[in-house]
Amino acid sequence: MNDPKITEVEGGITAPIGYRAAGVASGLKPTGLDLALVVSDSLASAAGVFTTNLAVAAPVTLAKKHLEKSSGFAKAIVVNSKCANACTGERGVTAAQAMAEDAATVLECNTEQVLVASTGVIGMHLDTNKVRAGIKEAAGQLCSGSHRRAAEAIMTTDISPKERAVIVKASSGSFTIGGMAKGAGMIEPNMATMLGFLTTDADVAPPLLNQALRTVVEDTFNAISVDGESSTNDTVFMLANGMSNVKITADDSTYTALVIGLTSVCSWLAQEIVRGGEGATKLVTISVVGAASNEEAKSAARLISNSPLVKTALHGGDPNWGRVLAVAGRSGVMFDQHKAEVRIGHVTLYADATVFSERESDAAQHMEGPEIDVTVDLGTGGTGRATMWTCDFSAEYVHINADYRT
Amino acid sequence: MNDPKITEVEGGITAPIGYRAAGVASGLKPTGLDLALVVSDSLASAAGVFTTNLAVAAPVTLAKKHLEKSSGFAKAIVVNSKCANACTGERGVTAAQAMAEDAATVLECNTEQVLVASTGVIGMHLDTNKVRAGIKEAAGQLCSGSHRRAAEAIMTTDISPKERAVIVKASSGSFTIGGMAKGAGMIEPNMATMLGFLTTDADVAPPLLNQALRTVVEDTFNAISVDGESSTNDTVFMLANGMSNVKITADDSTYTALVIGLTSVCSWLAQEIVRGGEGATKLVTISVVGAASNEEAKSAARLISNSPLVKTALHGGDPNWGRVLAVAGRSGVMFDQHKAEVRIGHVTLYADATVFSERESDAAQHMEGPEIDVTVDLGTGGTGRATMWTCDFSAEYVHINADYRT
Repeated sequence: MNDPKITEVEGGITAPIGYRAAGVASGLKPTGLDLALVVSDSLASAAGVFTTNLAVAAPVTLAKKHLEKSSGFAKAIVVNSKCANACTGERGVTAAQAMAEDAATVLECNTEQVLVASTGVIGMHLDTNKVRAGIKEAAGQLCSGSHRRAAEAIMTTDISPKERAVIVKASSGSFTIGGMAKGAGMIEPNMATMLGFLTTDADVAPPLLNQALRTVVEDTFNAISVDGESSTNDTVFMLANGMSNVKITADDSTYTALVIGLTSVCSWLAQEIVRGGEGATKLVTISVVGAASNEEAKSAARLISNSPLVKTALHGGDPNWGRVLAVAGRSGVMFDQHKAEVRIGHVTLYADATVFSERESDAAQHMEGPEIDVTVDLGTGGTGRATMWTCDFSAEYVHINADYRT
Repeated sequence: MNDPKITEVEGGITAPIGYRAAGVASGLKPTGLDLALVVSDSLASAAGVFTTNLAVAAPVTLAKKHLEKSSGFAKAIVVNSKCANACTGERGVTAAQAMAEDAATVLECNTEQVLVASTGVIGMHLDTNKVRAGIKEAAGQLCSGSHRRAAEAIMTTDISPKERAVIVKASSGSFTIGGMAKGAGMIEPNMATMLGFLTTDADVAPPLLNQALRTVVEDTFNAISVDGESSTNDTVFMLANGMSNVKITADDSTYTALVIGLTSVCSWLAQEIVRGGEGATKLVTISVVGAASNEEAKSAARLISNSPLVKTALHGGDPNWGRVLAVAGRSGVMFDQHKAEVRIGHVTLYADATVFSERESDAAQHMEGPEIDVTVDLGTGGTGRATMWTCDFSAEYVHINADYRT
């Protein structure tokens, strides 16, 4: 089996065949785009991955229900920013429902074929009149050229829109995957809501699409951390309309091609989210190896990624291997401090219970760059490994999050 | 059974009968006190609670061993600051051992009757010559008036020494409990090392002392969080020399009196540690009620206490109930968002899926004070509850931890 060839292309969420999008200013935000609509020309297979937070927003609950009722098919995705429609009780449920119905009406499809998502302030009620008007306007503007406007409309405090598309050249033919995301910059919403939307013109049955999406999200969107929070609204949707006529089948190279292509799109979007984290100045890759299992490696990597002490040291360019090691030690996974190892860049600072202080200046030099690699060997002799992407922790983060209402 | 009467007294760690202490400048720090010795006139029952971090420092391993070998008896505690003697391999083990032996020699007791603790930089080797000279000097200065010098000698980045003592008037007579601690201000050590040392002249058998210490530490030192880190060196020791002739017996009011008195000392010290957290400007009490169990309440309280988003909002005086609720939702414990409630001070901001935005200014006013109370009802209808103390998260914290080597 040859690896599929992946080529980056323009066009974001509408790069695959048969997708149109729009981004409009519905008035939820005082100025700027705040409502996005993504529509597939034909009914598409659909899958979703959602926040595990028990404080779950109304649109998340509704989208899950729609995926179930439609048996994993959808025609459109409608998303608003500014208002998360979370912690809004029964009225929030009705508002999310109205949003789906309004889109279904203008698109002439069933309500359960519409997937909804919201991001923004928690506890604020959604203005359904503005949403309805916005959806109508968006439906009139749907085209394949509006992918960037859609990507802008889902932004909250994101510095820039995040979109990506690739052509995947597999053995059975070429198909395209497109995507857009909004980030974990978290000031306007009360939490770090992450939204991701993906499209493909490959032909994938709903169960297989679901499997591919879950697999890829685990290693991409679920492998990033800005501040360890998970939101009331986190959502990733994927549509697959089959219009390339390339069929994806389980257990053969087409499925592998889908996963590789999807990973390429999602890992790029995920890393962009980290780069755009509030106050972030560095993209940091935390690799944990030598763990008893991949799960244990991920636990340790996640804890290191979220440690304020590690993240402030990363911000200060301080090759503070001791903090990294100590977080690994408290991570609750198997760990042997006498066989553990910490590397920053290619510089080993601690190994076999020996400290190499004289190498710290080399490590500090690596840390001056925009990307920092930290590798921890847990010393168990196991083959478990995991990678997380995180950012540094700056005073700017504190300013943004402490002072945003003042 | 009447509650015991607790009266605060001067004297810190040497307030109980039969304890002497010293704090000296051994030269580990460029200037200032860096070595403390606490000695009981008679062999005392002893207990210890230690870090659960697997990256554990040599003195912790040694102290555990000594408590075991001596069957829970000790004569003295010796502590150094500046160097954590952690991640120092075999040489670190030898250095910790030497520290205990040197103290045993000058105090004419068995080596296993000496408990050792260290705090400071990780990966730095302990200068045993300086420690030996310091112990000799300290032994010559032992007196009941040096409690404050001892409390100063264990400081790293602490703003001020932390000591406390109380007389406990129980039905069977009065006894005294003294204590000192160093805080979770964490810059000079590479991690937030917390050390606590307690003495009493009550007569308590080692198993009962151990039980009392564990019970109290769980609700005091283990109920605080500055940044969620646990250190390589965290240690709490307690000595009980019986010289008040007040016997503490399990299952009667004397034990309750011991626990109440000890809680009084430890909760004060613990709160002082939070107040002295790096960059801290507020003491925040997080109370979680309505949980399925006390354990679940504590899990949720701990996660809220450690959330950068919550802590930055606390810093900014922002009554951001949505962040608190969302952290409760992701805490992995039973939680019903429709019955949950968030209060800041006495102001209910969210209850029964209803947001009370108009009350935010009242809550903001409460947050202007030096102490903030946040209460979350998880809405399960259960009676589980827990309290954690934490501090806010300021830009100063980032500056201290990012820039401390520069």
